[in-house]
Amino acid sequence: MEPELEMNHADCGCGVGERKAVEVDPEIKDSNLKRLRRIEGQIRGLQKMVEEDRYCPDILVQVSSVQEALRSVGRELMRNHLKHCATQAMRAGGEQSDAMVNELIEMVYKHSR
Amino acid sequence: MEPELEMNHADCGCGVGERKAVEVDPEIKDSNLKRLRRIEGQIRGLQKMVEEDRYCPDILVQVSSVQEALRSVGRELMRNHLKHCATQAMRAGGEQSDAMVNELIEMVYKHSR
Amino acid sequence: MEPELEMNHADCGCGVGERKAVEVDPEIKDSNLKRLRRIEGQIRGLQKMVEEDRYCPDILVQVSSVQEALRSVGRELMRNHLKHCATQAMRAGGEQSDAMVNELIEMVYKHSR
Amino acid sequence: MEPELEMNHADCGCGVGERKAVEVDPEIKDSNLKRLRRIEGQIRGLQKMVEEDRYCPDILVQVSSVQEALRSVGRELMRNHLKHCATQAMRAGGEQSDAMVNELIEMVYKHSR
Repeated sequence: MEPELEMNHADCGCGVGERKAVEVDPEIKDSNLKRLRRIEGQIRGLQKMVEEDRYCPDILVQVSSVQEALRSVGRELMRNHLKHCATQAMRAGGEQSDAMVNELIEMVYKHSR
Repeated sequence: MEPELEMNHADCGCGVGERKAVEVDPEIKDSNLKRLRRIEGQIRGLQKMVEEDRYCPDILVQVSSVQEALRSVGRELMRNHLKHCATQAMRAGGEQSDAMVNELIEMVYKHSR
Repeated sequence: MEPELEMNHADCGCGVGERKAVEVDPEIKDSNLKRLRRIEGQIRGLQKMVEEDRYCPDILVQVSSVQEALRSVGRELMRNHLKHCATQAMRAGGEQSDAMVNELIEMVYKHSR
Repeated sequence: MEPELEMNHADCGCGVGERKAVEVDPEIKDSNLKRLRRIEGQIRGLQKMVEEDRYCPDILVQVSSVQEALRSVGRELMRNHLKHCATQAMRAGGEQSDAMVNELIEMVYKHSR
């Protein structure tokens, strides 16, 4: 679960290794934690379906539902990132702003399907 | 975690409600269970990252990694389905075969992103 | 526009190089040709929008609309393939059937996003 | 080819109806125009393949190649938008900045698959 090394790092003064968000909206944090706990339950449900040799398309519908839930988590992470860290970097201008644009493009086109 | 009701049901003699797969390859079942247990751990890792206010793009990289892992689960479910249930229905011909084609299209275009 | 060489080839007696479909439903062919002509117009519309320096998100909405239209073309190609060539191979059984399953998995997981 | 009305509009002083980009990098514009002309050729190639009843998976490989090319166009549009219009709005702060964040989320999660 280490961050991938090839990710471009926009410097937003958040330290190295265990980088922190500049700020997290409490309602985004809460709703993401709720979503992730629900997803954990869905993953256990999927394990049970596979163990019971359930009909493959029925399992796939649930896989798809988890994918959609993860996409919602990603969307809220992106929202928080844009509101705080990205905005800060883009206001700073210069290299920080350029690095942030590159990082955002990478987030969207590699990591947000 | 109930199967969605609007899913077209190709009849392959698997009962109603808790439909079973016609046959499951043991190596597909094992590898999918292993993948799903690993994914469960990744989901708990994500909860921890959110709790610790980690840098949003770092969390998003992990979300994307879970989505890729789920996609692999889906691919193997699809493989098993095509090898066994779909092949059986397509050999049976007639309405069973037509219903299976429609169900496959729905699986691919609604549930396999 | 040559078929990629790394594509697994399920042998369905369609010749090499310029492989033909076993059978094409005329209504699928017609609707796909109509869709592709409309898409060609949309692509020219996109060129005009880029030339006129139109607002990027407005262009992106149109890019997304073309992608959705191409996805519909893909869905109908898949439908035709499953109804005819895939069904034929799966009825033939043995190696032909196995090769078809592999080819279908590749179509779905590499080429249907 | 009109912009969809339900798109959130971040106000960046670009007029109504035929909204313009704040600024477009000439190399992004050139490469997008080249890509779109190439895509137009690919679409005509697809029409020919459909007319000739070519093997459906071979056509699907080409559909997928066009999708990837469109994704590249979208990525460069997003890059230009972030560099210029989004940066400008985020520096302006307040409501303009909030509206831009919402628009970006919508672009990424509705229009960038």
